[in-house]
Amino acid sequence: MTASPFDHPFLSGLLGDDEIAPYFSAEADIRAMLFIEAALARAEAAHGLIPAEAARRIAEICAAFSADLHRLRAATARDGVVVPELIKQLRAKVGEEAAKSLHLGATSQDVIDTSLMIRLKAVVFLFAGRLSAIVAGLDGLDRRFGRNRLMGHTRMQSAIPISVSDRLTAWRAPLEIYRDRLTEQSFPVQFGGAAGTLDKLGPQGPAIRAALAQELGLTDCRQWQSARLPIADIAGLFVSISGSLGKIGQDIALLAQAGGEIEIAGGGTSSAMAHKQNPVAAETLVALARFNATALSGIHQSLVHEQERSGAAWTLEWLLLPQMTMATAASLRLAGELTGNIKRLGTA
Amino acid sequence: MTASPFDHPFLSGLLGDDEIAPYFSAEADIRAMLFIEAALARAEAAHGLIPAEAARRIAEICAAFSADLHRLRAATARDGVVVPELIKQLRAKVGEEAAKSLHLGATSQDVIDTSLMIRLKAVVFLFAGRLSAIVAGLDGLDRRFGRNRLMGHTRMQSAIPISVSDRLTAWRAPLEIYRDRLTEQSFPVQFGGAAGTLDKLGPQGPAIRAALAQELGLTDCRQWQSARLPIADIAGLFVSISGSLGKIGQDIALLAQAGGEIEIAGGGTSSAMAHKQNPVAAETLVALARFNATALSGIHQSLVHEQERSGAAWTLEWLLLPQMTMATAASLRLAGELTGNIKRLGTA
Amino acid sequence: MTASPFDHPFLSGLLGDDEIAPYFSAEADIRAMLFIEAALARAEAAHGLIPAEAARRIAEICAAFSADLHRLRAATARDGVVVPELIKQLRAKVGEEAAKSLHLGATSQDVIDTSLMIRLKAVVFLFAGRLSAIVAGLDGLDRRFGRNRLMGHTRMQSAIPISVSDRLTAWRAPLEIYRDRLTEQSFPVQFGGAAGTLDKLGPQGPAIRAALAQELGLTDCRQWQSARLPIADIAGLFVSISGSLGKIGQDIALLAQAGGEIEIAGGGTSSAMAHKQNPVAAETLVALARFNATALSGIHQSLVHEQERSGAAWTLEWLLLPQMTMATAASLRLAGELTGNIKRLGTA
Amino acid sequence: MTASPFDHPFLSGLLGDDEIAPYFSAEADIRAMLFIEAALARAEAAHGLIPAEAARRIAEICAAFSADLHRLRAATARDGVVVPELIKQLRAKVGEEAAKSLHLGATSQDVIDTSLMIRLKAVVFLFAGRLSAIVAGLDGLDRRFGRNRLMGHTRMQSAIPISVSDRLTAWRAPLEIYRDRLTEQSFPVQFGGAAGTLDKLGPQGPAIRAALAQELGLTDCRQWQSARLPIADIAGLFVSISGSLGKIGQDIALLAQAGGEIEIAGGGTSSAMAHKQNPVAAETLVALARFNATALSGIHQSLVHEQERSGAAWTLEWLLLPQMTMATAASLRLAGELTGNIKRLGTA
Repeated sequence: MTASPFDHPFLSGLLGDDEIAPYFSAEADIRAMLFIEAALARAEAAHGLIPAEAARRIAEICAAFSADLHRLRAATARDGVVVPELIKQLRAKVGEEAAKSLHLGATSQDVIDTSLMIRLKAVVFLFAGRLSAIVAGLDGLDRRFGRNRLMGHTRMQSAIPISVSDRLTAWRAPLEIYRDRLTEQSFPVQFGGAAGTLDKLGPQGPAIRAALAQELGLTDCRQWQSARLPIADIAGLFVSISGSLGKIGQDIALLAQAGGEIEIAGGGTSSAMAHKQNPVAAETLVALARFNATALSGIHQSLVHEQERSGAAWTLEWLLLPQMTMATAASLRLAGELTGNIKRLGTA
Repeated sequence: MTASPFDHPFLSGLLGDDEIAPYFSAEADIRAMLFIEAALARAEAAHGLIPAEAARRIAEICAAFSADLHRLRAATARDGVVVPELIKQLRAKVGEEAAKSLHLGATSQDVIDTSLMIRLKAVVFLFAGRLSAIVAGLDGLDRRFGRNRLMGHTRMQSAIPISVSDRLTAWRAPLEIYRDRLTEQSFPVQFGGAAGTLDKLGPQGPAIRAALAQELGLTDCRQWQSARLPIADIAGLFVSISGSLGKIGQDIALLAQAGGEIEIAGGGTSSAMAHKQNPVAAETLVALARFNATALSGIHQSLVHEQERSGAAWTLEWLLLPQMTMATAASLRLAGELTGNIKRLGTA
Repeated sequence: MTASPFDHPFLSGLLGDDEIAPYFSAEADIRAMLFIEAALARAEAAHGLIPAEAARRIAEICAAFSADLHRLRAATARDGVVVPELIKQLRAKVGEEAAKSLHLGATSQDVIDTSLMIRLKAVVFLFAGRLSAIVAGLDGLDRRFGRNRLMGHTRMQSAIPISVSDRLTAWRAPLEIYRDRLTEQSFPVQFGGAAGTLDKLGPQGPAIRAALAQELGLTDCRQWQSARLPIADIAGLFVSISGSLGKIGQDIALLAQAGGEIEIAGGGTSSAMAHKQNPVAAETLVALARFNATALSGIHQSLVHEQERSGAAWTLEWLLLPQMTMATAASLRLAGELTGNIKRLGTA
Repeated sequence: MTASPFDHPFLSGLLGDDEIAPYFSAEADIRAMLFIEAALARAEAAHGLIPAEAARRIAEICAAFSADLHRLRAATARDGVVVPELIKQLRAKVGEEAAKSLHLGATSQDVIDTSLMIRLKAVVFLFAGRLSAIVAGLDGLDRRFGRNRLMGHTRMQSAIPISVSDRLTAWRAPLEIYRDRLTEQSFPVQFGGAAGTLDKLGPQGPAIRAALAQELGLTDCRQWQSARLPIADIAGLFVSISGSLGKIGQDIALLAQAGGEIEIAGGGTSSAMAHKQNPVAAETLVALARFNATALSGIHQSLVHEQERSGAAWTLEWLLLPQMTMATAASLRLAGELTGNIKRLGTA
């Protein structure tokens, strides 16, 4: 049940991430969806669209609801999305009266995309912290070894000597940019209803959407159900991060191969050769960078999102973005460990 | 713990495959690895390299061994591969005498690549059966509706009328080729030792490798640890299959949109619009085709596999190939269901 | 001599762009390189690094220099870059005295990357204008047909009626964002010398770089020779643009297939069917979007740019970015034509 | 006019190929198209579909026809394909009587796809020869240096010593497979008419197609206008070739960086460092491998080829396959040069 190394019983030791993985669990997704339904009910009640009592009832049920996963799975096979069945289960629970007020004016995509944004926002906050730690680690290396000499290499040949600080600056510069971008990244609510027009909400549609966004801590903006730039932007940022970390990994692997200019603790062992110290984390950073670079292409294919909602393009995102996030997470984790394991860089 | 839709509690209803997923479980992988270690010991004993008693002991332990997954995970984080720790656990179990005979002359890549081939061989057998069933289903549609008329479309415009049989023939032709290719696909054993030279086996190396291949039902060939064509070939075949099935999906989605020329049972429901019958399986075939097309690029990036073994290029395969297999599996499953659900095609 | 449709004698009618193509001619590249060498000499003279007379001589020669293309080609085959031979030809022309002052402290990558940035800056200015025109065209359609009714489609099925304005807003929203991003895009000078340390310029290095950037109308920043984020950023923006235009193309092709809700002038003719009006531009937008989405993956692979300069990763950029720019150009041109050709949208 | 390095005035010295480029010139394409029209007329005359006199006239004109490229370009912009205008020009030339017999029952795709196959067949023949030469070169290196010692490297670390022969065998093995595959590759004629049904040819359709194939030296098979496996197969083979050559390039670049185990003649010079000898060809092999791996993804996206002919999917092939062929050509050329320049490998 583990085609993905990110969730694999043993490969996840290398490629997974215990802190980020839970955000992509079915539980976290459903919890976010319930949170959205409750918030939507509150926003709609506040604007007089549904009775306050119904909103209270919906919020109360959503807070403690435990979905029947088995039936969710069967229904997703049929519907292509989990939401109709989830709403059906919820409606049965909230009772006939509140049922009419549940999910009012919303569609599956509203709930699924918004759930993703809620979770990505939390993930990006953690990523920013990791990047800061890596930058701080590189700063530390700079203080300790920055004046050491390193042979500069261009086109895979010795060029002229540079300082360790020169190399570290080249590693650090893009990371600082990413840290800022992660911090400034906006996470838009998705709320459009059946075909993106909030057709059931009348003139109060935008106000309810704004209230919903505020409840959820997301940015209010017009629906983006068929204009997937928010997805492409976040994916592009993640892939840039893992790409720049892959460059660090490649550099460290080359330093480790040449020997002499680097000492790293914690390398991997070999089943055939007891003497080896493999720069496993460095190589894995390269693998993750190339995985993410590969996947980004599919995210951009999904910008060709036909009409008001494309099942094909949207499902393609699901196949890619969560894993790209996990690859970025593993990349940040490994880069932090790897730079922390550098015991010496350059020669005095 | 479910960044991958293929293994996801509810998304796997749509995108997973209950028959194929078990081949990518950690259990199946470890079972295959144990099977390989036992077979290797037998082959080495048969050639006098290790005592027959040791081979018996190893085979006996491997048959019933239950690995400590927790320690496997921790070790994979350090070593980048699971094998050193698995062998360590096995050695502790077989006893000091047989321990020296275990994994003799082999390396991690031998065990991991060969385990993959054993499992892919079984999967491909199942794929061939599914393709045959789809072809038979198309044959059935041809018998029932082949003479019906269908408007031929070129460049998204009505062109001239064709027969349903014309369209079905275009769908079926590549599938018949794939069925043959799947049947003829060879699955090579990987056995090279530390650097691919079978350095510890002396002149008997090739004979032992041939015996190992025979034990495992794989093709004997020289090690391919840094020449990853077998991986690229299988991946290319899988992606071609899902691509051609994606074309069928796209055609059916377009037929369903136009209406009139197709009737399908079993469409998906909508959380916002009770009247809709979404061609979910058809769209999902397109999504899976584009996912696999995206991923294939990464498999080919990993052909740039440096030196005797590249941790970076090899790990990249792990991130891609199992999921590409799962996407192909889901694609075959959905194409079978979808063509089986066609109640009418064309107009009389 | 025309493997690329962008430069092809007849395919360029469809896929090329007469306004943008000249920026990727060898002549434009060399002219920009000469401009850079002259500007560098002036900046270095202003900071007392070379004689003012040498700078004058260099600027004079660069203004009118005509390179021997035949020898440039032969040398590029050997050196992997054109610059050493170009400098050699220039040195022979400026005379022995000024020759020592030419290209002082610079390396091939400085000249090539900076030439690219100069030309991309001009291209992006034109792109922003085109996007504005497309947005204005969509505004015009909105004024004329915005209140018309259009059948909303989700998952390739009729959903609920929307207004033409709803659809146009979904098309326009990302384009407005791109227009702003194009306007705000910065184009950094690249100047680092042999290994990125401006080793030959001493403490005046940063000041000379700043002067150079100002002379060239580029942004001053630390060298980015091995941190290729500026390339990935621009590429990502281009691919997002063509992706969103591809969505418009797909929508129009689907409207044209269904008929009834759109009238377009200027469709293509068929060699086999005189009655057809093919939505050629719409389909081409999809093709260009998918081409760019494909290529973006390679740009991100090249972020794994080893050491101080990677010939492999850098050359990969050359194989991709100019064509991605051309694809974006063609995409903008076609989107402008196509939306201009819409004679009716929706039904009253 | 040269966004593509393959056709660029100076970059083509590095990345182009003088022998293969002409096959992708507009002239070669048109010549092949004329050849096809003449062959089709002959086949149709032989089967009594058109007068023998008309076929003679068509063949005579096609043999010497010079198309008006300017008008071809303008028409391609409108029609998305060059054929309608080319046929129009031809019809005007052959005279009213024969005009009716020209292109009878054929469509643009027949002519364009078949022209591609004619040219790819010639290219693949040349590729097979180049591969043979590279294999022979590796054999020669094996004879001279095979017993030398080389440090085996796994995971970017020294592993155990291997022989030069071991490394050369790993390089050579996939190349021998490719050589066989190139030799066995079939090149199918494409002939289906407006919607793939040869609707205008009646019961003689298949016989005429077989005759056409024979005239052109291509394989007869049912039309594949919407089932693009032949394209994916050839592309996959090309990308595998450049991938395996990229592995050789990467290995050589790493050997050159380490020094000591390789001597190569003919490295590149640097504009900043006179002492360097850059392994330009080795790095370029890596770049070309990654370019092709990137592009392959788009070829597989185009397998989702909707209905009887997709302008979008087909145009995407044009944007990719010619360049992938050129990248493979350059890769084979450079690999031949590079392995020929190896003066020593390993240590005695």
